[in-house]
Amino acid sequence: MDNRYFNSEAETLSADAIINLQEEKLEKQISYLWEKSKFYREKLKNAGAEPGDINTLKDLSRLPFTEKQELRDSQVQAPPLGTHAAVPMKDVIRIYASSGTTGTPSYVGVTRMDDEVWTEAVARAYWAQGLRPGSIFAMGFGIGFFVGGIPVCNGVHKIGSTFLPIGVGASDRLIESIASNRADTLACTPSYASYLAEYASAKMNIDPRDLGIKKLMVGAEPGGGIPEFRSHLEEAWGAHVTECVGNADVVPIHSAECEYQDGNHFLLPDHLILEIIDPNTGAVIPVDGDNVEGEMVFTHLGRQCGAHLRFRTRDHVVIKTSPCPCGRTGIRLKVIGRTDDLMIMRGVNIWPSAVKDLVMSFRPRTTGVMRIVLDAPGPQVSSPLKIEIEASAGLKDSQSLKREIEKLLRNKLIFTSDVSIVPANSLPRTEMKTKLIHKTYDV
Amino acid sequence: MDNRYFNSEAETLSADAIINLQEEKLEKQISYLWEKSKFYREKLKNAGAEPGDINTLKDLSRLPFTEKQELRDSQVQAPPLGTHAAVPMKDVIRIYASSGTTGTPSYVGVTRMDDEVWTEAVARAYWAQGLRPGSIFAMGFGIGFFVGGIPVCNGVHKIGSTFLPIGVGASDRLIESIASNRADTLACTPSYASYLAEYASAKMNIDPRDLGIKKLMVGAEPGGGIPEFRSHLEEAWGAHVTECVGNADVVPIHSAECEYQDGNHFLLPDHLILEIIDPNTGAVIPVDGDNVEGEMVFTHLGRQCGAHLRFRTRDHVVIKTSPCPCGRTGIRLKVIGRTDDLMIMRGVNIWPSAVKDLVMSFRPRTTGVMRIVLDAPGPQVSSPLKIEIEASAGLKDSQSLKREIEKLLRNKLIFTSDVSIVPANSLPRTEMKTKLIHKTYDV
Repeated sequence: MDNRYFNSEAETLSADAIINLQEEKLEKQISYLWEKSKFYREKLKNAGAEPGDINTLKDLSRLPFTEKQELRDSQVQAPPLGTHAAVPMKDVIRIYASSGTTGTPSYVGVTRMDDEVWTEAVARAYWAQGLRPGSIFAMGFGIGFFVGGIPVCNGVHKIGSTFLPIGVGASDRLIESIASNRADTLACTPSYASYLAEYASAKMNIDPRDLGIKKLMVGAEPGGGIPEFRSHLEEAWGAHVTECVGNADVVPIHSAECEYQDGNHFLLPDHLILEIIDPNTGAVIPVDGDNVEGEMVFTHLGRQCGAHLRFRTRDHVVIKTSPCPCGRTGIRLKVIGRTDDLMIMRGVNIWPSAVKDLVMSFRPRTTGVMRIVLDAPGPQVSSPLKIEIEASAGLKDSQSLKREIEKLLRNKLIFTSDVSIVPANSLPRTEMKTKLIHKTYDV
Repeated sequence: MDNRYFNSEAETLSADAIINLQEEKLEKQISYLWEKSKFYREKLKNAGAEPGDINTLKDLSRLPFTEKQELRDSQVQAPPLGTHAAVPMKDVIRIYASSGTTGTPSYVGVTRMDDEVWTEAVARAYWAQGLRPGSIFAMGFGIGFFVGGIPVCNGVHKIGSTFLPIGVGASDRLIESIASNRADTLACTPSYASYLAEYASAKMNIDPRDLGIKKLMVGAEPGGGIPEFRSHLEEAWGAHVTECVGNADVVPIHSAECEYQDGNHFLLPDHLILEIIDPNTGAVIPVDGDNVEGEMVFTHLGRQCGAHLRFRTRDHVVIKTSPCPCGRTGIRLKVIGRTDDLMIMRGVNIWPSAVKDLVMSFRPRTTGVMRIVLDAPGPQVSSPLKIEIEASAGLKDSQSLKREIEKLLRNKLIFTSDVSIVPANSLPRTEMKTKLIHKTYDV
């Protein structure tokens, strides 16, 4: 009989049990970091806190955040893993590079035990998304330095599916392997899924719908959560699209959709404390109902290498706590965008993903590919917002398309834009994450 | 204390113990294939053999060979894994693609148990080459569809070293990761090792000798066994070079060098029967002394998916059986080239790797990069043999270089050549396997 959960105990913990478990593990984790991590011992000391002081989630919220830049600085000071790493190199079994936005790679290490937790995390998430023993899983994420590589392989093995290790940069081979091995599942970034569908049609003369993919599992960028973009992928592949969410410095996947698809269930209450904060004030926002909004902050429980206290992800989410028919007790979250990408025009919040979603609704007159052009750093931006949008090949009246899109942006998202309609295929595409913002000042 | 062997029992089995173990496992494997593999049941029936008939190594040698083309045909008939696969897809945990020489991918599946044997094989080989817990291992082999990808990762974890998952196609990142993480070991193809050294100097202004690589572990193509090419790599990297040998249809690695470096020890007598045959007559050549030469043929013992009886590798080797001071009992082998690549001119055997070795000895006047140009299929080739060889930048007298190389080829390898000296960097390079033969008739 098909079981609904990969780990029914962890995925259906009661709210009280979660708090008890987290507080118990938190106390141990603080002692561990105090002893093993120079970086966190100093942070705790600076906050006037000692191990015995931090026993509850309330205590935790008094500690300072950990910012990505602090981790970079810590690695410059003590390369490669930084003073936060907490274990000697001999206990590190694998080191990932995350290039982030600055170009200087930062490194993330895992011990054998950390790796087991990552494998379990992937298995819980892909199980929730419908992967089962017998599924044939085509790997369209990079298998190298990307945290979603080998852990995804291991998680798929843990479930007992068949893994086709392809990765990015070999689109012909990926499509050939899907066809020959009758893969029913494809995992990749949503932008690569879109690129691959175009590639199959244009370069290989194959309708992606004929490839037999039933489940398209996307992640690693917010596109999968944008309704119009999701519909586009479902239509292009003839497949059911689900998404999951992770973070290179935290865990490859922490949340994923179940069959009810009403947000991504947070699946790791036994390994991570998730707080939602106001990105401006840093205040913790109580997660006590639907539509709570804010930035995700994570604290590791039991992680040995690369453990963090109150790590700011910069991922901005909307939360749901109302019960889900699937029975999972974890809160559900939906990423709206990167806190860094938030733009504010005359007091109105503008998220690039919301703009993208609206642009997608103009398909097939546009290709759906677009970018916001910023000439100065945000979050405050001046009016009108410049947006480049690709016309489909053969579009006749780009002037009226421009006016229609500008009007809808004004009515729906309440801001003034200056849309440039550019030729089909003139904007950059990538096999990895696609950027929705083009910063002309940041070259 | 450092242990010399990863698996002392398997690596030091006596000759008698090997025969007993192999014959016991052979009997079971034949019964298994008879029952589970349509392909092998038919082959056995056509040979007039039934399970009970094949109990000894002598019995085995009466069975027909398995050719790569038969596996391709079997996969066309029953895609994706062919009638030889012997397990249902639900038991296959991973499927590799090997593109081979024809361009049509063929697929190789492994079960969980097969994968464990592959992990063990990699661990035995890299241990023999000096990898230890505490080593920091930079992965310069492709991690995707290549059989040496995930199994190498798993083998390195089994040893307990730190794995840096980079793969091919990201040379900047590989070099950056080696430098930042102070990797002491680099594994890749010998041609990629050469390319990377050039790349670091020319593109990143880094002397590869400053990167701190102590052990360069090469494989997947014969270059590592060519003395002059090996010296070139050792000099370029300031590192000790060792090699290992494998085959996508058999096992990622079956043989590797120990610290005495007098050939690659065959490390898997408990999982594979290795026969040496005359590639022309198919007769088994007794392995009873040093310098026995022939093609390797493998029979799997205990493999579940993709098991083969008498699979012809087309790899031509020279064998040594004299005792090695390291104490490993497996025979030692050195790949001279692919049987397919053997050329015969007026009764004289010409191996491309021998030509390459001689060309390398003309460094620094040549870059060492060369290719043999064949206008018609071998193995019989007409005189003179056309060879293109890259001059180093700034070489003045290419006419005398041409004459010197032609003379040495005539004296040492006993054939007549027509050498064209071509400009530096004009011949193709690749991050994967480099071809030494350019077939103008095969476009």
